[in-house]
Order: sequence, then structure tokens, then C-alpha cells
Amino acid sequence: MEETKILEESLREIMEQHLAENQYAKIRTMLQDMNYVDIENLLADLQPDQTLRIFRMLPKETAAEVFTEMDSDMQQYIIESITDLEVISIMDELYMDDTVDFLEEMPANVVKRVLRNTDEATRKTINQLLRYPEDSAGSLMTTEFVDLKKEMTAKEALKHIRATGVDKETINTCYVISPQRKLEGVVSIRTLILSQPDVTMEELMDTNVKYIRTLDDQETSVYLFQKYDLLSMPVVDGEDRLVGIITIDDIMDVIEQENTEDFHKMAAITPSEEPYLKTGVFTLAKNRVMWLLVLMISATFTGFIIRKFEGALSQTVALTAYIPMLMGTAGNAGAQSSTMIIRSLALNELEFSDLLKVIWKELRVGITTAGLLSVFNLVRVMIFDQVSFGVALTVCLSLFCIVCLAKVVGGMLPILAEKVHLDPVLMASPIITTILDALSLLIYFWFATTVIGVA
Amino acid sequence: MEETKILEESLREIMEQHLAENQYAKIRTMLQDMNYVDIENLLADLQPDQTLRIFRMLPKETAAEVFTEMDSDMQQYIIESITDLEVISIMDELYMDDTVDFLEEMPANVVKRVLRNTDEATRKTINQLLRYPEDSAGSLMTTEFVDLKKEMTAKEALKHIRATGVDKETINTCYVISPQRKLEGVVSIRTLILSQPDVTMEELMDTNVKYIRTLDDQETSVYLFQKYDLLSMPVVDGEDRLVGIITIDDIMDVIEQENTEDFHKMAAITPSEEPYLKTGVFTLAKNRVMWLLVLMISATFTGFIIRKFEGALSQTVALTAYIPMLMGTAGNAGAQSSTMIIRSLALNELEFSDLLKVIWKELRVGITTAGLLSVFNLVRVMIFDQVSFGVALTVCLSLFCIVCLAKVVGGMLPILAEKVHLDPVLMASPIITTILDALSLLIYFWFATTVIGVA
Repeated sequence: MEETKILEESLREIMEQHLAENQYAKIRTMLQDMNYVDIENLLADLQPDQTLRIFRMLPKETAAEVFTEMDSDMQQYIIESITDLEVISIMDELYMDDTVDFLEEMPANVVKRVLRNTDEATRKTINQLLRYPEDSAGSLMTTEFVDLKKEMTAKEALKHIRATGVDKETINTCYVISPQRKLEGVVSIRTLILSQPDVTMEELMDTNVKYIRTLDDQETSVYLFQKYDLLSMPVVDGEDRLVGIITIDDIMDVIEQENTEDFHKMAAITPSEEPYLKTGVFTLAKNRVMWLLVLMISATFTGFIIRKFEGALSQTVALTAYIPMLMGTAGNAGAQSSTMIIRSLALNELEFSDLLKVIWKELRVGITTAGLLSVFNLVRVMIFDQVSFGVALTVCLSLFCIVCLAKVVGGMLPILAEKVHLDPVLMASPIITTILDALSLLIYFWFATTVIGVA
Repeated sequence: MEETKILEESLREIMEQHLAENQYAKIRTMLQDMNYVDIENLLADLQPDQTLRIFRMLPKETAAEVFTEMDSDMQQYIIESITDLEVISIMDELYMDDTVDFLEEMPANVVKRVLRNTDEATRKTINQLLRYPEDSAGSLMTTEFVDLKKEMTAKEALKHIRATGVDKETINTCYVISPQRKLEGVVSIRTLILSQPDVTMEELMDTNVKYIRTLDDQETSVYLFQKYDLLSMPVVDGEDRLVGIITIDDIMDVIEQENTEDFHKMAAITPSEEPYLKTGVFTLAKNRVMWLLVLMISATFTGFIIRKFEGALSQTVALTAYIPMLMGTAGNAGAQSSTMIIRSLALNELEFSDLLKVIWKELRVGITTAGLLSVFNLVRVMIFDQVSFGVALTVCLSLFCIVCLAKVVGGMLPILAEKVHLDPVLMASPIITTILDALSLLIYFWFATTVIGVA
């Protein structure tokens, strides 16, 4: 990655040099050999007016690809700086899903200007796509797919693809539809090419199609893509008519975004889609402070418990020294279990009916690890800490019970959360830790005062 | 997902019924309409001998696909139960990457039997692939790709694909190689189909190819797939010869696996690839106990600190009640920062040169959140807790400093870890929390004894 950085740096310098000297031929040659992603990376490092100058030199197909990669500030700047004719030419090249993604981030005046420069039919499609809820399959799909008819032969189908394919997002999978546009089957380009020219689509097509509905959650499509190793998936409306397709590149983005969301939620942060360096201090603070406040207030319960046992503590001050270790171990043990379960739920490896299996497994894992930790701790406390045997026994018995409890609670809560339609990720480390802090103290003081009676 | 479960359940019952009654025709009809993933799911729920009976009825292409989906215990059972001829027929249909994945999990005698039933050339390729290190690009790739020559016309290329394509893992992207098998360019099937029949590959091919070397880390290929929205990527050896391709379905598996690893590491679990329910209690305990032990021992430092200030605590017992809240908030605040940074590093949004930017940003976020939390806490403590103003002030000033420190330390450590080639994920919540626990106590007692002098 370091080398890439240096390479990008020198590319940028050469480009700035060429721009300063108006060496347009040289710039064109440079751009010709570059991937659109790399061009966008380069432009992102230049001044806006330099970006604009280069952008206008791109062939229109590349321009559209580069435009799709840009962040919305730059997209807005470009659209506000170019002529109506240029807007038309870019919109013409953009796939529908990218158009919609872009328009969703634009202010009303830019949206208006763009829509004014598209034809009636496109405008209608855009408006329809913009109406799908944010995380729905409909909002992910594009409308440029290859549709075939059942009666077509392989030869006719290929001819049809040659005539229309240039505007399609993918031709790797083609869709067979009825005259009423109902989805009847799929044919891969591979099947088409490898088959005899006079075989019909009806014979070739696979009718066992994995599809999704426009209003289904995007997570369902991620699940189906992963389960069936798909490259694209048809989207049908309420009347089973094929209205669009979702392609794997968009699914990869959703996976990345949802994993990031899960990581953030597991650390008690309100998730945001912006990259870290582009997020303002105020937004970062806002996304974090709510949860910190909630957890801080919950943590005061532990304060109550300690205050309730103040007498015991002042009698045997040695007990205080073990509180952080006990609470820390409880939190860590619980977080291990809850994280494993949360991830398994996300990967659909677990469901509610496995609850008892999970509890039983965590209990046994708990007893094994708790046993080991307690024995180790007993030896350590007796040798190094010079406390009474009663205190040592209290610490170790508490540790044993706390770790077992932490494992079971950590394993159980995410599954219960999913059952009542809460996000299991809420039951990640911060909440589990806070709950276990209080429980640990109660167990500890119960052993100290009631069972062993050291305080 | 609930419906899927019920559907699978009833499918299994029907299948068992048919098997008991030896209704082979009915079973064949059922299987015909099913996707190979669904067939494997069904077989996984049956008895091994039932699985075997159905497996043998599958057409050989489907059999190979279903075989690839099976877990290694079932694969072993199948291979050990079928005839040499059947082994040959399955091996013939398997793609090389799947063959290697399967053989890697098999005991020596099964590997031997499989290799004995493959031809010389295949055996050589398998042995070569088996030698690539586990997380290398070479271990992910398959060797069945379409190779074209520069001089071929589009028409000739399509003819070549028709003749050889049936055995290739994908024909969507084709690779142009020199007589020495050096990679010269790529042509998508879309370009081929949409072009004029007499254009040569030299004119059609894209020479700006994103490729990877056999020994490169698989994470590099994940990065390139995501950055450039690829569907497949060529793999070249030390002499730039094309030796294989990686396809997106394998990349999706790597992404899932690496995310799971990160989730587990962030909860201080030694990662394992097995699904939770299939992992034994002993393995689960082993993967967790090491870290718990390390963290428990580190947590005893907090014990030392408390013992050192035992005098102060026994003098002002009220101070003890706030220890869990302070440590909890520090841990949560630090975990928020470290998680955000760890995820940004994983997505290549951050690098070492951003260290100062991150520290400065975290400091400001810290001051904002810490300020809010402290003021809130001061009011709460004064109203509800009836402690002296000195104690309240100590708690709130400590809270302010601790949260600021937690933010900066949490933001900094993952970046420093990456710089010294440690996995940044190690600096996740458990370690950060343990470090911050000790620092929080030191700050707290310093305020209590030295600055405010309440104890």
C-alpha cells in the first residue's frame, strides 16, 4: 500500500505539471491507460477546477464511470459547473442505480436540473426508483438488464444481445420474461454461447430462479447472493413482473457497509456511513456520547451496590482491590460469548431454536474456563497478595460463578434480542459488560458477607 | 428465514418417505428442480447412508457441485464409500480450486486414493496448488480459465470458447497470453460478443490489467476486487506467466471469513473457522481462556494501585463507589475510538501518516464528550449522592481527564500497532479497557489525594 501511495503522489505531480503547461495531448495519453477508479483517485487529490478541466477531457463513457466513483461534494461541483449538454451526455451513460445513488445525495436544485435534462421515460423510472425505501432491494437495483423471450432460439437471443447489450449493466445473465413481463427463467451467457444455435430459451432456461421483491430488505439479497454464489439477481414487483436486477458489486458494498455498522454498534457507536477522516468532530461526538451517557448511568447501579456494602468494605479493605479484576474478567468472558453468538446469528448459522443448545454449550465452556482461571487465581492470590484464606476463597469462588454466569448471559442475550426483533448487536460488549458489572458485585459481596463471612 | 426452515423440514420428510419406499423416479424428479445448494442442505439433514444413496443418483455435474458444498466429514464419508470409477467422475467435474480445498482437509489415505484416480497432468497441478501457503493468492485460484491469443479475431475467439468453455470456471472474462504464457491483456465476453467478428484480440483487449502474484496475500486480492469492482482476477507466477484466476465467489468467502476473524479477535477470542455449533466445548474454551488469563493478570495491576491507596480509600469510603463507573466509562470511550480506527484501517481509509490527524480529532471529540458527561455527572452526584463537594469535584475532573485520555489512547494504539506490523485488531476493547482501567485509577487517586485532597 505504501508503494501505491508514492505512485499516486508522483502521478498527481506529473498531471499538475501538464495542466500548468496546457499539455492536453499528454494528459489524454496518460488518462487513456488508466482505470476509471485510478482516475477518480487522482482527481480527488487535485484542486476542484483542475478536476473539472480533466473531467471534461474524458471520453463520455469513462467520464460517467469516473463520475460514479466520486463523492457527492465533487459530483455536485461537477454538475453545477458543466453545461446542460454535458449533463445530458453523462446521464445518458450512467446506469440507473448509479443515477439514483447520486441524486439521493443532491440538493433539490441539482436534482431538478438533472431531471430537466433527461427524457420523459428516464425521468419516470428515476422517480419510481427514488421512492423505494433506503434499505430495500428496489433501491439497490438497476433497470438495464437483458430480457429475452421464451420462443427465441440461442442464435436469435445472441442477435438480440448484440443489438441491445451495449446499454446493459451486465449481459452475463439474461432474463426470460413473458409478454406480461413476468419472470420465467434465467439463461447465462455461457449457456447461450455453448449451446446449439437453434435451441429455444424455453429449453435452455433455468426456471428455478432465486429472485427478490422490490420491497424486501437488502440483507435478504445479501443472504441469497452468498448462499447461492450469484453474480446478479432479478427483482420483481408485487405482480411478479421483472423490474430490475441487483449486481454483485452493489452487494459487496452492502456487505462492507453492514459489517462496518456491526463493528460500530458493537462498540456502542451510532453507525455512520462517512469515512472517519471525513466525519466532523461534532458528528463523531454526537454518535458516541448518547451511548456513553446511557452506559454511565447504568454503571451507577454498581455504585449503589458498593455503597450498600460500604460497611463490609471498610471492615475488610482488601476486598476492594479485587473488584476491578472480577468486573474486568466478567466483562471479557461475557463479551467473548456474545460476540461469537452475534456473528453466528449474522451469518445465519444460529437461530432461536438453538437457544438451549447455546446455553448448555456456554455453561460447559464457562465451567472449563472458570475452573482454570479460579485455580490459577487462588494460587496467585495466596502466594503474592498475603490476604487471609477467607478473602482468597471469596475471590476465587466469586470468579468461578461470575465467569460461568457471564458465558451464559453473553450467549443468551443476543438470541433473545433477535427473538423480540431487536438487533442482536445491541447485546455486544458494552451492554453485556455493564450488566455483568452489577451482577459480579452482587455475587462477590454475597460470598463475602453471607457464605464465607469475611466481612 | 422461518419459512425456509419449515419448507426444508417438509422436503426432508418427503425425501425420507420416498427413500423408504424406494421411489427413485420421484426422487429424481424432486432433485431435478432443486439448486445444488438446496440439495446439499437437504442431504446434510439426512442419515449418512441416505445421503450416499441420493448422492449416487445425482447427474455427475450436479454431484460435483453438491460435493463442493459439503463439509469435510461428509466429503470423506462419500469418497470412502464410492467406487474408484465414481471418484474419477467427480474429480473430473470439480474445479481445481475446489479439489484443492477438499484435499487440504482430507487424511493422507483419502488424498492418496484421490490422486491415484487422477491423470498425471492433473496430479501435477494439484500437488503444485497444495504447496501454496494457506492465505496466499495461489491457494485461492483455479486453473480453469479461457486463454486467447493476440492474433485471434473475435469470431475465432468465440469459436475457441465454444470448443473449450464447458470446462472453464468462468467464460465471462477471457485472458490473452503470449506464446510463453505471459499475461498480455483481458477481454470480457461482453466485449467479444458486442464487437465486429473480424477485430483481433490485440485491438479489443484491455492491457491495463489488475493482477496478483501467486504468493501475494489473499487480503491484497480482496482489496483489489473491492477497489476495482472485479468479477475475476488473473494470478501470475514469478515469471509473469498466467497460472490461474481467482473468482469473486471465493473472494466473498474470504471477506466473510476475515470479518469473522476480526470480530472474534476484537472480543479477545483466538479465531477459528468452524461454525459455533460444530465447535467442541474444549476448542471453544481453549480459544478463549488464554486471553482471559492474560487480561486477568493485567487487571491485577489495578489491584496493586487500589492497595497502594488503601489508606485514602478507608479514609473516604465514598470514593470506592465511583470506581466501576469511571473504569466502565473509560473502557467504553476507548473502545469506541479504537473500534472506529481499527475498522478504518481495515478498509484502507487510514494509514500511519494520518496519526497526528487522528490524535487531534480524537482529542477534540474527547473534550466535547468528556465535557458533557462530566457536567451531567456533577449535577447527578450533587443531587442524588449526598457526598461532599470535594468528592463530587474529584469524580468529575477525573471523568473529564479519563475520557479525553481514553479517546486519544484508543485512537492511537491501533495505528501504532499496524506501524510495527502487529494486527491493529489486538488493540480492541479488551486490551484498551485493561490499560485504561489502570490509568483511570491513577488519575482518580491523584485528583483525590494530591489535587483536591479529599483523602
